[in-house]
Amino acid sequence: MKLVAFGGGHGLGASLRALRRCRPALGLQLTAVVTVGDDGGSSGRIRAQRGIVPPGDLRQALAALADDAAPSAVTAQLFQYRFARSPVAGDDDNLAGHPVGNLVLCGLMELLGDPVAALDHAAAMVHAAGRVLPMSREPVAIEAQARGGDPTRPDELVTVRGQHEVAINTGRVEGLRLLPAEPAACREAVAAVREADWLVFGPGSWYTSVIPHLLVPELAAAIRASAAQRLVLLNLSVEQETAGLTVPEHLTALSAYGGGLTVDVVLGDSSSVDDPEPLRQAARSVGAKLLLAPVAAADQPHRHDPVGLADALLPVLAAVR
Amino acid sequence: MKLVAFGGGHGLGASLRALRRCRPALGLQLTAVVTVGDDGGSSGRIRAQRGIVPPGDLRQALAALADDAAPSAVTAQLFQYRFARSPVAGDDDNLAGHPVGNLVLCGLMELLGDPVAALDHAAAMVHAAGRVLPMSREPVAIEAQARGGDPTRPDELVTVRGQHEVAINTGRVEGLRLLPAEPAACREAVAAVREADWLVFGPGSWYTSVIPHLLVPELAAAIRASAAQRLVLLNLSVEQETAGLTVPEHLTALSAYGGGLTVDVVLGDSSSVDDPEPLRQAARSVGAKLLLAPVAAADQPHRHDPVGLADALLPVLAAVR
Repeated sequence: MKLVAFGGGHGLGASLRALRRCRPALGLQLTAVVTVGDDGGSSGRIRAQRGIVPPGDLRQALAALADDAAPSAVTAQLFQYRFARSPVAGDDDNLAGHPVGNLVLCGLMELLGDPVAALDHAAAMVHAAGRVLPMSREPVAIEAQARGGDPTRPDELVTVRGQHEVAINTGRVEGLRLLPAEPAACREAVAAVREADWLVFGPGSWYTSVIPHLLVPELAAAIRASAAQRLVLLNLSVEQETAGLTVPEHLTALSAYGGGLTVDVVLGDSSSVDDPEPLRQAARSVGAKLLLAPVAAADQPHRHDPVGLADALLPVLAAVR
Repeated sequence: MKLVAFGGGHGLGASLRALRRCRPALGLQLTAVVTVGDDGGSSGRIRAQRGIVPPGDLRQALAALADDAAPSAVTAQLFQYRFARSPVAGDDDNLAGHPVGNLVLCGLMELLGDPVAALDHAAAMVHAAGRVLPMSREPVAIEAQARGGDPTRPDELVTVRGQHEVAINTGRVEGLRLLPAEPAACREAVAAVREADWLVFGPGSWYTSVIPHLLVPELAAAIRASAAQRLVLLNLSVEQETAGLTVPEHLTALSAYGGGLTVDVVLGDSSSVDDPEPLRQAARSVGAKLLLAPVAAADQPHRHDPVGLADALLPVLAAVR
C-alpha cells in the first residue's frame, strides 16, 4: 500500500511517527511531501546564504522516519541537535542556532547538485522508513492577505509575507499565495501522488504547512486526479495563525484551496471536540466521514500520541475502497 | 593482527589508505591515533568557538578509512565536502570554509559529550575500516624553537607557535613542545598501543603530525614499552617545515623525541632516494632495516600511491617477529 503524507514541521512529524508504526502491518510505502516556504531561523539563514530549499522541515520529516535502532537513531539525534550559542565564541559564533541536519542537508544538496538526491542519501543515513521529498525544488515565499490582525483596526486587510509572519499572524486569512505564484512541482512527488492509495493531509499549521501543497499547480492537479483516498488529520489545538478559523472551517478552507477537493475520512481527537455535530457536518460537506479517537498524548494534550494515532489510523488505512 | 598508525592530516590519510588494503589479507585491526594541535582554517575556528579538539585531522582519517561502497562513500564525500564562499551570502557567510565532516564531528562531540564516542559514531556512519582516536581529549598548541627562519639573521632562535606557523616555518627546529606541556593521553589510544603488533609512524609533517605523539607522556611511555614492531613511513618530498632536516635526520629526530626510541623497519620510496647509503646508516643508527620500494604515485610523485604502498607494506607487516 502506497501513502503520501503532506505537511511541514512538527505536524508532519506527528503523522509520520504514527504512520511508520502502521508500516509493517500494511506493507506501507511512505512518501512525505514537504513545504519549502520556511524563511525563519536556521532554515531562513541557510536559504538566504546558500540559495537552496529551506532544509528544516525536510530534516524534521527525516528524523520522524528514522530507524529507532543504533546507529541510525544517533544519526537522527545528530540531525536534530541544534548548536547552542557557545560560551567561548562571542560574536563570532558561526554555528549557533543551526541543527546539524540542516548543515548536512545543505552540504548534500551542494555536493550532489539536487535536493531529491540529497534527501534520498540523508534518508539512507538514518535508515528512514520512507522517502522525503520537497513539494518543489524551488524555495517559495508564502504571502497571506489577513484581516483584523490589529484589534484597533478590525476591518483592515494587510499583506503578511513569509512563513513565520503568516504563522504568527493573528488576523483572519482571506487569501494565500506562493511567490513565485506557480512553482514547478517536484516530479517525484507528483509521481508518488499518482501511484498512491492514500493521501494524508495534516496535522499542522494550516496555511503554512498544509494548504501550500495545493498552491503548486501540478501537485494540486495530481492530487485532484488521483484515485487515492484522502484523509485529513485534524489539529489538536487551534493554531495561532488560524485563530479566526474554526475546526470545521479548516476543512472548508482545504477543500476551497484545493479547487473543490473532496475528502474521504477526517480523523480528530475525541477529547478535543465538545460537540461533534458541526464538525460532522463540515466533514460531510467535503464528502468525508468523521472519525474521533483518543489520539492526543496523555501528558501533552497539544501533541499527538504516535501510538494512539497509529492505533486509530490502522483500521482506517486498511479499509481501502 | 593489531596495528596503530600515528599521524595527522594528509600523511596519515596516505598510510591509512594503504593499510586498509592490507586489512583483508592480514585480518588487520586498525587504529589511527591523530594529533590535536591544528589551529588553522575550519578546525581552528571550530576549536576557538566551540572549545573542542580540532576535528579536521580526525575527519581526514575517517575519510581515508571509509568504505568505498555507497552509501558510505557518499557520506565520506560529504564529510570532505567544504562549503565554498556562497555567491549570494556576502559577508554573512556562516559556513564558507567548513568541511561538512568538521561540523558533523563538532555536533557529535557536543551531543555525545565525548570525542571518542563521537568518533566511534562517525566511523559507523562511513563504515570505517578501523577506529580513529585523538592522541588526547584536550586540544593542544604546538610550539617550536626555530633558528634561521629569517635569512638575514641566520643565528637567531625564535619561538614559533601554532601548528600552521610551525608547519610553514622555514627555520631549523631545535626544540618542540606542546601546550599544555603534558596533556593527558586518550586512554583508548594507550590501550591500543599496548595491544598492538605494529606501530606505524608517518608519513607527514614531521614536527606537527608525527613527533607530537611522542610529547604526550603516557602515550610515549606506552609506545616505548610496547612489544609491537615499529615502522616508519618516510615522506616523499621534504616538507617545508623540515627544510633544514635531511631525510636521515627525520629518523634521528623521531628517535630523540621518543627518548631513544628504536625502530624496526623504515620504508622509503625507491625513486626519491639517489644514494641510499646515508639513509641506511641512519636507519641502522635507530635499530632499523631500510626498505626502498616504488610507493609514489606515478602521476603525482609527491603523493603516495595507496596500491603501491600497500604492496610494499603487506610482506613487511606479515613478517611479524
